[in-house]
Amino acid sequence: MFVFDKPIEEFSSWANETGCLIDKARKEGLKLAWDRLASQTPQCNFCEMGLSCAKCVMGPCRIIPGLDRDKGVCGADADLTVARNFGRFVAGGSAAHSDHGRDLVEVLREIGSGHATAYQIRDEGKLKRLAEEFGLSVNGDIKKVAKDVAERLGQDYSTFGPGLAFLGRLPKVRRELWDKLSITPRGIDREPVEMLHRTHMGVDCDPVSLALHAARTSLSDGWGGSMAGTEISDVIFGTPAPGKTKVNLGVLKADMVNILVHGHSPVVSEMILAAAADPAILAEAKKAGANGINIAGLCCTGNELLMRRGVPLAGNHMMTELTIVTGVVEAIVADYQCIMPSLVNIAQCYHTKFVTTSDKGHFPGAERFHFNPQNARELAGQVVLLAVEAFKKRDPNKIFIPVEPVEIMSGFSNEAILGALGGTPDPLIEAIKAGTVRGAVGIVGCNNPKLKQDHHHVTLAKELIKKDILVLVTGCATSAMGKAGLLMPEGAAMAGEKLAGLCQTLGIPPVLHVGSCVDNSRIIHLCAVLANALGVDISALPVAASAPEWYSEKAAAIGLYAVATGITTHLGLPPMILGSPALTNLAVSGLNDVVGACFIVEGDPVKAGAILDDLISSKRQGLGLSA
Amino acid sequence: MFVFDKPIEEFSSWANETGCLIDKARKEGLKLAWDRLASQTPQCNFCEMGLSCAKCVMGPCRIIPGLDRDKGVCGADADLTVARNFGRFVAGGSAAHSDHGRDLVEVLREIGSGHATAYQIRDEGKLKRLAEEFGLSVNGDIKKVAKDVAERLGQDYSTFGPGLAFLGRLPKVRRELWDKLSITPRGIDREPVEMLHRTHMGVDCDPVSLALHAARTSLSDGWGGSMAGTEISDVIFGTPAPGKTKVNLGVLKADMVNILVHGHSPVVSEMILAAAADPAILAEAKKAGANGINIAGLCCTGNELLMRRGVPLAGNHMMTELTIVTGVVEAIVADYQCIMPSLVNIAQCYHTKFVTTSDKGHFPGAERFHFNPQNARELAGQVVLLAVEAFKKRDPNKIFIPVEPVEIMSGFSNEAILGALGGTPDPLIEAIKAGTVRGAVGIVGCNNPKLKQDHHHVTLAKELIKKDILVLVTGCATSAMGKAGLLMPEGAAMAGEKLAGLCQTLGIPPVLHVGSCVDNSRIIHLCAVLANALGVDISALPVAASAPEWYSEKAAAIGLYAVATGITTHLGLPPMILGSPALTNLAVSGLNDVVGACFIVEGDPVKAGAILDDLISSKRQGLGLSA
Repeated sequence: MFVFDKPIEEFSSWANETGCLIDKARKEGLKLAWDRLASQTPQCNFCEMGLSCAKCVMGPCRIIPGLDRDKGVCGADADLTVARNFGRFVAGGSAAHSDHGRDLVEVLREIGSGHATAYQIRDEGKLKRLAEEFGLSVNGDIKKVAKDVAERLGQDYSTFGPGLAFLGRLPKVRRELWDKLSITPRGIDREPVEMLHRTHMGVDCDPVSLALHAARTSLSDGWGGSMAGTEISDVIFGTPAPGKTKVNLGVLKADMVNILVHGHSPVVSEMILAAAADPAILAEAKKAGANGINIAGLCCTGNELLMRRGVPLAGNHMMTELTIVTGVVEAIVADYQCIMPSLVNIAQCYHTKFVTTSDKGHFPGAERFHFNPQNARELAGQVVLLAVEAFKKRDPNKIFIPVEPVEIMSGFSNEAILGALGGTPDPLIEAIKAGTVRGAVGIVGCNNPKLKQDHHHVTLAKELIKKDILVLVTGCATSAMGKAGLLMPEGAAMAGEKLAGLCQTLGIPPVLHVGSCVDNSRIIHLCAVLANALGVDISALPVAASAPEWYSEKAAAIGLYAVATGITTHLGLPPMILGSPALTNLAVSGLNDVVGACFIVEGDPVKAGAILDDLISSKRQGLGLSA
Repeated sequence: MFVFDKPIEEFSSWANETGCLIDKARKEGLKLAWDRLASQTPQCNFCEMGLSCAKCVMGPCRIIPGLDRDKGVCGADADLTVARNFGRFVAGGSAAHSDHGRDLVEVLREIGSGHATAYQIRDEGKLKRLAEEFGLSVNGDIKKVAKDVAERLGQDYSTFGPGLAFLGRLPKVRRELWDKLSITPRGIDREPVEMLHRTHMGVDCDPVSLALHAARTSLSDGWGGSMAGTEISDVIFGTPAPGKTKVNLGVLKADMVNILVHGHSPVVSEMILAAAADPAILAEAKKAGANGINIAGLCCTGNELLMRRGVPLAGNHMMTELTIVTGVVEAIVADYQCIMPSLVNIAQCYHTKFVTTSDKGHFPGAERFHFNPQNARELAGQVVLLAVEAFKKRDPNKIFIPVEPVEIMSGFSNEAILGALGGTPDPLIEAIKAGTVRGAVGIVGCNNPKLKQDHHHVTLAKELIKKDILVLVTGCATSAMGKAGLLMPEGAAMAGEKLAGLCQTLGIPPVLHVGSCVDNSRIIHLCAVLANALGVDISALPVAASAPEWYSEKAAAIGLYAVATGITTHLGLPPMILGSPALTNLAVSGLNDVVGACFIVEGDPVKAGAILDDLISSKRQGLGLSA
């Protein structure tokens, strides 16, 4: 067992367990993201402002507005350069989510065709509801229904499709606005491809036009690829229902084979979970001296398994490197997205196996397994056995699990929420009208080493719930909230009187965990349900979104589709657009006149809480309710 | 008339007409691309080497291999950072071509549906050949055939399609190689979208895997979107046949309304051409004092009209700004790609109207016309009338057309080439075997202000033809070759004895113009025809490609699909990959072992000619032919 020279309570610059593991890593000669950030600081001002361009070899160019260097070789000024960069940034995020969604649609199609025997339809009711929503037949073999639904969603990825299947969920007034602005997404793949085209030299040279197409691209994610990802994951793996589990590094077990599933897709991780319960493999683990096999999650793959299976969550983005430093991780099984390339190197300093499973996510030095829907269960067994082997090579002197796990409640799918309300949104609407729930804010996404980890998530959530604003969380916000006790009914003690009362009555926490980052589609869907029930546009609702510690292109896409959907969105860090005052002003104010929502950039979570509280008050007043 | 203080023969640092117009522009206080390049120099070394990354807000990062800053915040090293950047660069180019191809497929579908009355099927024979190639019925109404072909190609843009329609053209051995490498493109939109996904933080972290997916992405362009663009343009607007026309700034007429069509698509420019022949509009031009309406082309839209209609070509990429400086351009009608944003500002210094026609290509300050297949002919008339109005506002003191036009021969589609040979490639193969044509090199794409304009194109072509190597040209190389006299049968005097003899016999130039930059698909298709006839892989052929003065993402995509198809490709400037010795070595050598072809980077066109000559000798020997 690794022994520290001071008590972990003293590592207080971050959360204690983070601080002490950073210290342990440094003692062991490792460099972590915080160290690399320090080496990279100061960061390039041109890139940070969105003012550099390397999209052709007449360049690269760096724009300095007001000086002789105010245009690139092609003639692009600061506004255009920033818009092109931001457009590609959003396209990167949208493409990531939507390509993830495609994988789920493909697995459903394989199930429908009888080729993916390890997978099944766990929620036939949801599949049939989707078929009905899409105007498809629900009669006959469930496999046929699965194939039809998959192929209908497949059309959303095509160029001559009938239009995105999920757009029917939106209030008519919002659809009409999008049509008027020409930002209704036409195809899930088409919009990011057109963004690449538009940002090629000499295509779309109008920053506003690029910004609008960025919105369309993000909508093809939120109401397209991400929503497909969420809905089809529910169909295949089951729609989440409330239940309890645990979070933080304490979910790792010193006496067990620990396997961390990392990435964003449930497709492989569900098979790892199944393989870990295989008696033959468990017997191997016993033989190796382990008291069992412990599967825990990281990031959004973790959220997927947590929501549906109650699998404990070891940590979020900034904890991924540190989990290995505990010395008890036998394997990290990665699919894709947000998997720091550094993990392979850190794993190599321990006995930890780093396993890749996706043909689109390779890492030099990793153990490669080529998963597909046919071989998934078999390969999962091999991966788990690899971890069992690694267990034998653990170095006892490196073991250090600094904290005990914390209990949380999870599983709040829309079906679960509406189901608990008797199948209609009316009780929720009544609670909003009465001011028991003054409004709702979705806190989503990511950590960033530039910010004190989890601090912004938790501080903002506390500020909001004490003002009777319900908080919904996804992604990396989950473990932050969990560690702070906000995901348990007892967390209601931190809420305002009215919200606390409601939580006590219903036995729910004041912060509801609704899933992974594609599951932000649950939040926009719920907003549409509420808006339709009230007969108003989504922008009239007393709701908002926030990404207090965001880092990724996906978070930018989420933020933009939220805003384009009519939901004002707070960001704890600015996107790389500050080099264009015109685009910055459009983002933080002008968009209000275009889509009825905009961005708020505020680094102080207490101030952000006050701004969102004001926003919700004004939205309430707009609906004729008390502030 | 503008009068120079020295004879234009003295402006010899570039081609004379370029030099004197640059000088005129400077006298008029304008800044051109060369001036902006000077302001941007020195350019950012990190960007130029591919070592900067702004794909998440943990960054931006700048990698310095060997120092403390050798990794980004996420842990990406130099190789990974370069690979991610290069992957997106190729995706940008592929997306541009393929989105252009989509537009043609959509117009064909609209024709088939009876909704695009201004357009027609000019080559029914080619449409039927494509239908047969795709296994579709050719019976019944031609509109039905058009719709079926369009929808079949539409499937290539989808995610559950049957596989790219044109892949059947390839030699079996090449297809098998791609399958083995997992680089067979699955969908035209899917590959660039997956590239965006893979290059998101924490997805594909293996530089080699990213390079292979870049190849797959480029192949979805060359054998997908670009090929669809070429083939369907032929179907709608007619397959080119040899004919004569003129190039250079001298095609502008001082006594006429001059309209320049600029961009890459024939969809709008063909309508402008039709409108300019409308007697009512011509009467308006006469009324305004003009002796008619003169349509001339720029860049690849120019190449499209030149190939099919013999419309003269005013210039290539680096001439676009200078055409306005002649003072006789009434309107530039832009569709998309390679349209420098500076053109609007330069146009504003003259009487020139800058007109945009595409919903994906807006320019602040431009006259916007929202063309679609239904309104195209009507709007084209409005645009031409706008130019007629502008004619009245010409400033006679600014007029300066420095040169007389040069005659060229064009229209060498594969159908024309094979047709002239009696319908089979056999005579060409016999000529290759006999050494009359030792081999062929496609010289393609772009100018770059970093290089002496046209010099590299022309010098390389001369080096090659004098060694009996036939040259095929597309895109911006066209007007360079034309001005040098290489596109006329008389140019054979500059060729080696054997090639010259053949040119004289057939009455063809030693450099054949085969089209625009999507028409590089004609070249790879012809290579496949030859390889199939010989029963060898494409990589065995004595052929090569070259982009001596390239600048754009599209050129990188073209180069990579050529290499992945088995055609070694010379670049006059390196791509932004030099920050990774591993990837650079892969590009210039390692790829030979993977796909049987690689890149050659050589800035001296004489040396490049010698290298390509050697390559062709060795390929000939490989086929058992004399060197």
